[in-house]
Amino acid sequence: MEEMKRAIALIECADRRGIIAAVSGTLAEANANITQADEHTDVDGRFFMRLAFTCDGGQNTLAAIEKALYAGVNVAAFDQDHSMTLRVYDAERRPSMGILVSKTDHCLVELLYRHRAGELAVDIPFVAGNHEALASIAASYGIPFHYVPVEKDSKHEAEERLLALARCNSCNFLVLARYMQILSAGFIEGFGGDIINIHHSFLPSFMGADPYRQAWERGVKIIGATAHYVTERLDEGPIIEQIVERVTHRDDVESLRRKGKNLERQALYTAVLAHAERRILRCRNKTIVFA
Amino acid sequence: MEEMKRAIALIECADRRGIIAAVSGTLAEANANITQADEHTDVDGRFFMRLAFTCDGGQNTLAAIEKALYAGVNVAAFDQDHSMTLRVYDAERRPSMGILVSKTDHCLVELLYRHRAGELAVDIPFVAGNHEALASIAASYGIPFHYVPVEKDSKHEAEERLLALARCNSCNFLVLARYMQILSAGFIEGFGGDIINIHHSFLPSFMGADPYRQAWERGVKIIGATAHYVTERLDEGPIIEQIVERVTHRDDVESLRRKGKNLERQALYTAVLAHAERRILRCRNKTIVFA
Amino acid sequence: MEEMKRAIALIECADRRGIIAAVSGTLAEANANITQADEHTDVDGRFFMRLAFTCDGGQNTLAAIEKALYAGVNVAAFDQDHSMTLRVYDAERRPSMGILVSKTDHCLVELLYRHRAGELAVDIPFVAGNHEALASIAASYGIPFHYVPVEKDSKHEAEERLLALARCNSCNFLVLARYMQILSAGFIEGFGGDIINIHHSFLPSFMGADPYRQAWERGVKIIGATAHYVTERLDEGPIIEQIVERVTHRDDVESLRRKGKNLERQALYTAVLAHAERRILRCRNKTIVFA
Amino acid sequence: MEEMKRAIALIECADRRGIIAAVSGTLAEANANITQADEHTDVDGRFFMRLAFTCDGGQNTLAAIEKALYAGVNVAAFDQDHSMTLRVYDAERRPSMGILVSKTDHCLVELLYRHRAGELAVDIPFVAGNHEALASIAASYGIPFHYVPVEKDSKHEAEERLLALARCNSCNFLVLARYMQILSAGFIEGFGGDIINIHHSFLPSFMGADPYRQAWERGVKIIGATAHYVTERLDEGPIIEQIVERVTHRDDVESLRRKGKNLERQALYTAVLAHAERRILRCRNKTIVFA
Repeated sequence: MEEMKRAIALIECADRRGIIAAVSGTLAEANANITQADEHTDVDGRFFMRLAFTCDGGQNTLAAIEKALYAGVNVAAFDQDHSMTLRVYDAERRPSMGILVSKTDHCLVELLYRHRAGELAVDIPFVAGNHEALASIAASYGIPFHYVPVEKDSKHEAEERLLALARCNSCNFLVLARYMQILSAGFIEGFGGDIINIHHSFLPSFMGADPYRQAWERGVKIIGATAHYVTERLDEGPIIEQIVERVTHRDDVESLRRKGKNLERQALYTAVLAHAERRILRCRNKTIVFA
Repeated sequence: MEEMKRAIALIECADRRGIIAAVSGTLAEANANITQADEHTDVDGRFFMRLAFTCDGGQNTLAAIEKALYAGVNVAAFDQDHSMTLRVYDAERRPSMGILVSKTDHCLVELLYRHRAGELAVDIPFVAGNHEALASIAASYGIPFHYVPVEKDSKHEAEERLLALARCNSCNFLVLARYMQILSAGFIEGFGGDIINIHHSFLPSFMGADPYRQAWERGVKIIGATAHYVTERLDEGPIIEQIVERVTHRDDVESLRRKGKNLERQALYTAVLAHAERRILRCRNKTIVFA
Repeated sequence: MEEMKRAIALIECADRRGIIAAVSGTLAEANANITQADEHTDVDGRFFMRLAFTCDGGQNTLAAIEKALYAGVNVAAFDQDHSMTLRVYDAERRPSMGILVSKTDHCLVELLYRHRAGELAVDIPFVAGNHEALASIAASYGIPFHYVPVEKDSKHEAEERLLALARCNSCNFLVLARYMQILSAGFIEGFGGDIINIHHSFLPSFMGADPYRQAWERGVKIIGATAHYVTERLDEGPIIEQIVERVTHRDDVESLRRKGKNLERQALYTAVLAHAERRILRCRNKTIVFA
Repeated sequence: MEEMKRAIALIECADRRGIIAAVSGTLAEANANITQADEHTDVDGRFFMRLAFTCDGGQNTLAAIEKALYAGVNVAAFDQDHSMTLRVYDAERRPSMGILVSKTDHCLVELLYRHRAGELAVDIPFVAGNHEALASIAASYGIPFHYVPVEKDSKHEAEERLLALARCNSCNFLVLARYMQILSAGFIEGFGGDIINIHHSFLPSFMGADPYRQAWERGVKIIGATAHYVTERLDEGPIIEQIVERVTHRDDVESLRRKGKNLERQALYTAVLAHAERRILRCRNKTIVFA
């Protein structure tokens, strides 16, 4: 007897009457049982859907369902929708997530702790750092650490090493856990997958360096942290999650930094969890994050 | 040429494979276009769905769609699902909401202000008070006010007058905007529709009288307000919305009351808005509130 | 027998050893009883203090206490502290607050409602608008309304009229309750007192026009509102209060505006209350807001 | 030349005119410089003060200042205030904090991580567990772990061992980081110092066992965690800190537990930090937590 499979479908296509019927009808015909459905139609007429479902059968069944869904959406569109993006994921196959770090450990510790606690269902094949400072933390969680120093004239070689690491570990996405190097456009394109970064301010406020000092100087009453996808434009990629905390005149820069570190790890974990659970769809320079 | 109608379907039934397909397929056949779909399956195997859709045609079309949806769900269930609740609403027909008050005005003002500002799409046929204190506020917003005093030995008559008011104004639901009388089981059953109350604490903490004093005596660091549906069990009905605010040792009972009043009007408005937009489904003694 | 007076002292001076002793000793000698004391020392060595106290006697007593405190601080400084700002206020004398508006009413209604509810202890001698739209709202709360239109070539005259209004009503401070005109440097200087504005974004994000559209386009996950003192640099004055709310991909610009309006009135009321209770001291381009 | 000492004075006494002057005058005479002053007068006429100050000299100076402060308050009271509690602490002498655990690690990891990160200035002489599960975590942070099993008939012996551990490590306070044993009145009295516990609900809601299940069954829209001092009455001690998070109908019991674990570690850390920085004073069954 075949086992039950849990799967997730993510669909983006042009909005048309009957798409939900086409998609859910296709799954019903395939004897799949939808356990959660979320959809969103953007102002520009793009349709986004996430379906969690269970079905009998193995990986082949999922491939067949993906194909059937693709056909179903096209039928609903009365034509081939060349703008469609459709993907069915095996929910039990954990995505592979590489982590890049520098010297500060709070975001790394949060991710590794959550992973060990069973609160982040990913595989973590490696942590790579441009400093050696966090090697022992990775080791204490049983994750391989790679020291990939970045010097002024060796940035390209370092990025090549990181790319090789990501590839040979089949990384689906990368997380910059306070990685203090700017990745080149070549790296971003070369990797191809998603890269999640944590910025230590409530973007778009205080882009660039030392945001807590900027925040203190401006005298804001609330500080924040922002997890976002990396794009070629620094600090301008699609925002995934933001978390804030109230501060007062008593907080100096150091105190903002301490409070901010806590926000950073919360925001980054929340974003990474949503990504790992395939609850995020990108829409122009924004994100749709299903609950 | 017929106009476009906006409508909402709320469905509760036993969870079965294919229900989303049946429902969305039925709407597609009726040439309706789903603009928003939300669903939830409870741990007990109950399925809940809210569909916002547009369609050509008038009230008759909606009745036909309701009938077709009913049939569609039964087909998916391979049998008649006698536990099903299914209703299609004309989204442009505003629900009729009666308001009951006593002496304090903050919740009433919030509702009437939001209504006037176009942020609460209901009809408000009347405000009824067991005191005359708020008559002038109702008048300043152009809403009829009825003085229905409640004395120890006239409670039954007062409730009869309120029931008559609700009926002859075709009220779909009632809001207790700090109405300081306990409604009898007879009234609740007699009215039949939903009744929303605001309790001035973070339920289930501090049920009963003077919750801000209770909160102050317990020394809580966060206070709250709770909007809930009224049931025969006082303060124990399904919770719709809760809002909280941080307090400190500096807050005395009076200060908690002042802060709490602000929470009460926010929580009540949020709950009433969700109800008016037909985003709430009840599930045992709980609520499903779609975003 | 003389009555008991409640008073507030606000002090800013150079930080020196013994200042709290000098100040509290002076009050003790004057038979005043400190009911609340708050102090803050800034990183730049400036000392800030707020003292709430009770004393016997009338206005003359307060003047004498102010003089004694001034002398006391100078003794502590071993010299005259020319940078000192020291002021004793009769806590029962309500500050006079003028309100400027344009067409949108939510901030005005919040302030007038709180005032009527006894939650904002100020006198409101007038509401002035560059449109007539809100005249009836002011009237319903019994506050005089002045229509002061601003045309391209009459801005100076309009500001002169507003200045005259403020002066002949002895306004201590002004509140811009979504007043959509930029005040000239001449007006700000001419008025002399504090001016509180509400900006409909989480400053410094989204300065300038249509911040909710900017926020929607950037795809932020949290929106906010900021109450701040007006300076010659638009949207860059000292921040008094900020309030935020979580939003999602479902919120369109209109929905952000609706949620934002609620934040605006909360932030503005909170800031105005702190100012009216004389809990704010300015420190460079920042504020110290005592709890 | 003698070094500069940082110290903290905590005072509770009957409220009298002139107390702040007496206290700050005493410190000025001792050439101490107050860097932060916080005070609170309770409705019952009790006065509470925390003073952070710097002074020249060593431990002897602090003892002399404590004595002088004691005399100064009595002078202000015109008599000996037998209800006074007054203590001067050397701010550089870290309090000694013992940690008790059972099997779940999230609170322990948070405390040990914060300690290592320099965000919790205490000494941690030991972690003691009634299970061995967390021994390796303590070890990875370099903290001694003691296995103190508790069987039905060995509870007294176990508590004796814990008391001995606390005493021979000169523990100033204990933290129950999800320690799943109820401490006897004898233990609480025998230890004498403060004991901080984390309860996994928004007290006073859901006292007792399995609060997340209780919360789920009640259908609350916000969950919380509460850090409080332990008293003989289970879950009824003075509340130090509460943190909450919004939940929806989608959260099942497991999801509430996962979200709650994050709240628990935040609330416990915040409470422990405030206690370690001597920012908490007890007032009847409540706490005064200075910012």
